[in-house]
Amino acid sequence: MERDVNIEEVGLRDGLQSVDNFFPTELKKAWLTAEYEAGVPEMQVCSFVPEKLIPQFKDASEIVAHALTHPGLRVSCYIPNLRGAENAFKAGVHVAGNVISASEGHNQSNVRKSVAESVEVFKQIVELRNSNNDWKSIRLCGGIATSFGCTIEGPVDPTAVERLAAMYVEAGADELSIADTVGYANPAQVRDLFTRLTPVAGDVPLSAHFHDTRGLGLANVVGALEAGVRDFDACLGGLGGCPFAPGATGNIVTEDLVFMLESMGLKTGVDLDKLLEAREILVNNLPNEPLRSAIAQAKTPIGFAPASA
Amino acid sequence: MERDVNIEEVGLRDGLQSVDNFFPTELKKAWLTAEYEAGVPEMQVCSFVPEKLIPQFKDASEIVAHALTHPGLRVSCYIPNLRGAENAFKAGVHVAGNVISASEGHNQSNVRKSVAESVEVFKQIVELRNSNNDWKSIRLCGGIATSFGCTIEGPVDPTAVERLAAMYVEAGADELSIADTVGYANPAQVRDLFTRLTPVAGDVPLSAHFHDTRGLGLANVVGALEAGVRDFDACLGGLGGCPFAPGATGNIVTEDLVFMLESMGLKTGVDLDKLLEAREILVNNLPNEPLRSAIAQAKTPIGFAPASA
Repeated sequence: MERDVNIEEVGLRDGLQSVDNFFPTELKKAWLTAEYEAGVPEMQVCSFVPEKLIPQFKDASEIVAHALTHPGLRVSCYIPNLRGAENAFKAGVHVAGNVISASEGHNQSNVRKSVAESVEVFKQIVELRNSNNDWKSIRLCGGIATSFGCTIEGPVDPTAVERLAAMYVEAGADELSIADTVGYANPAQVRDLFTRLTPVAGDVPLSAHFHDTRGLGLANVVGALEAGVRDFDACLGGLGGCPFAPGATGNIVTEDLVFMLESMGLKTGVDLDKLLEAREILVNNLPNEPLRSAIAQAKTPIGFAPASA
Repeated sequence: MERDVNIEEVGLRDGLQSVDNFFPTELKKAWLTAEYEAGVPEMQVCSFVPEKLIPQFKDASEIVAHALTHPGLRVSCYIPNLRGAENAFKAGVHVAGNVISASEGHNQSNVRKSVAESVEVFKQIVELRNSNNDWKSIRLCGGIATSFGCTIEGPVDPTAVERLAAMYVEAGADELSIADTVGYANPAQVRDLFTRLTPVAGDVPLSAHFHDTRGLGLANVVGALEAGVRDFDACLGGLGGCPFAPGATGNIVTEDLVFMLESMGLKTGVDLDKLLEAREILVNNLPNEPLRSAIAQAKTPIGFAPASA
């Protein structure tokens, strides 16, 4: 199946990160397998953080091991620092994603480092990856948080995002993820920023990570599509949010994103019916979490003809 | 104030149409005045239908009279037939909107007429308008329902929409409103259909009427903007839906639309804070109606700089 757009499910990381109760390992595995069977090509399956900071991810290595049993699945994870990177590499992930905020204030609040200091950590992660032949195929993704605005600093200058993108590329990032961490973006801003970043990124692929805090998540996807972006993060049921961004609701909803893209004639390779079945795992096992999805509620239109069918 | 985009509030008609309990006349007037003071330039304030069919609009003439006391406000209404048109003209509306479905099945189900028969009725309405010198400045808007799909027939051929648009223009329509009555549209389809309709409409302005049934309402606005559309219907709080379209949720949310457009640098002339105050009239007086709005919940971003300010 050739895909026009690649969707990365981030619910097992970004979604579960805001869920206080430990979601049982067996249910995480079932969720992962169900989405794999629906055709989702890539998943961010955990975060390699100390268990005492976020107990939700204490089974990170076991989840990665399970993910790696699914042929063709691109297995990614979040790494906050060098220690996390080493654990992720040992676990055998295909992609490890680090995040630095374009906003100094947000980065300080988040990791108590300046942007430049965080880039130095990323360089150490690149060196660590390069130091071991077994790890050389692991791709490192540079995430840029608060690319469209920040709850601490307000507007974020696009040149700050360009600058950080350039620093990431120079440091050896294999991919870049441009994130609207707190749901501030609008479609025109999205189109403009990705258009600006395209020459900065060069051969390094750009992906988009949107939150739906102000209802513009899917509208922002349309803006990003206009700028040529073809890689989007999304979260089944819109689960979760950013613990460092007060009031931020979850990521854009995977099932609604698939519905929109497939309706637009863009192949995602994802079977929407199977994806909605996978969703039931969350519905049945996270009764206290507010799950969203317009398409789960309204059902697909009569005569719906997905592009991937 | 020069506006880049014109927003027409349709809550007093499309929103209230699905509210069973009569919304008191004084509250309708207060709502209208509050949105006028927020800067909304046009409102569809009622429907001229028989009281026994939809009691909600029994005060139609009184609401129009109140609307006409607001200098510069463009006062529109819905007219289902010749009798309704006559009453609307006598009431002194600036714009009267008729609706015909692009889908034969939906039109039959809705008004028990073929599309061609409905166009004949529209021609009679044009003749009636032209027959009286006092009415000649009244503009007639041809609405095309189910332009993007239909709950009875499923997909709707865009050539059926083009054909109906051409019939409307030939019959003397001054404006066209292209409606996604049942929330089937996607952004690519929206862009494509408006691009096709532009030469058909010629000098006749095109506006877009979207429902948010499947979460794509604002994404569809982005698609329409790409095709050059600059007139959008919306509904405060996303109130209401189409009584003939099972499962259809309300129109796109006026306050979220204003937030998106103003964020994008497009002047609507609407003050979002005042609009959110107007919303409180619905919050306080329609406790049983599900109201929506992401921006009312999340508040505007820190440093939000609306284009109209």
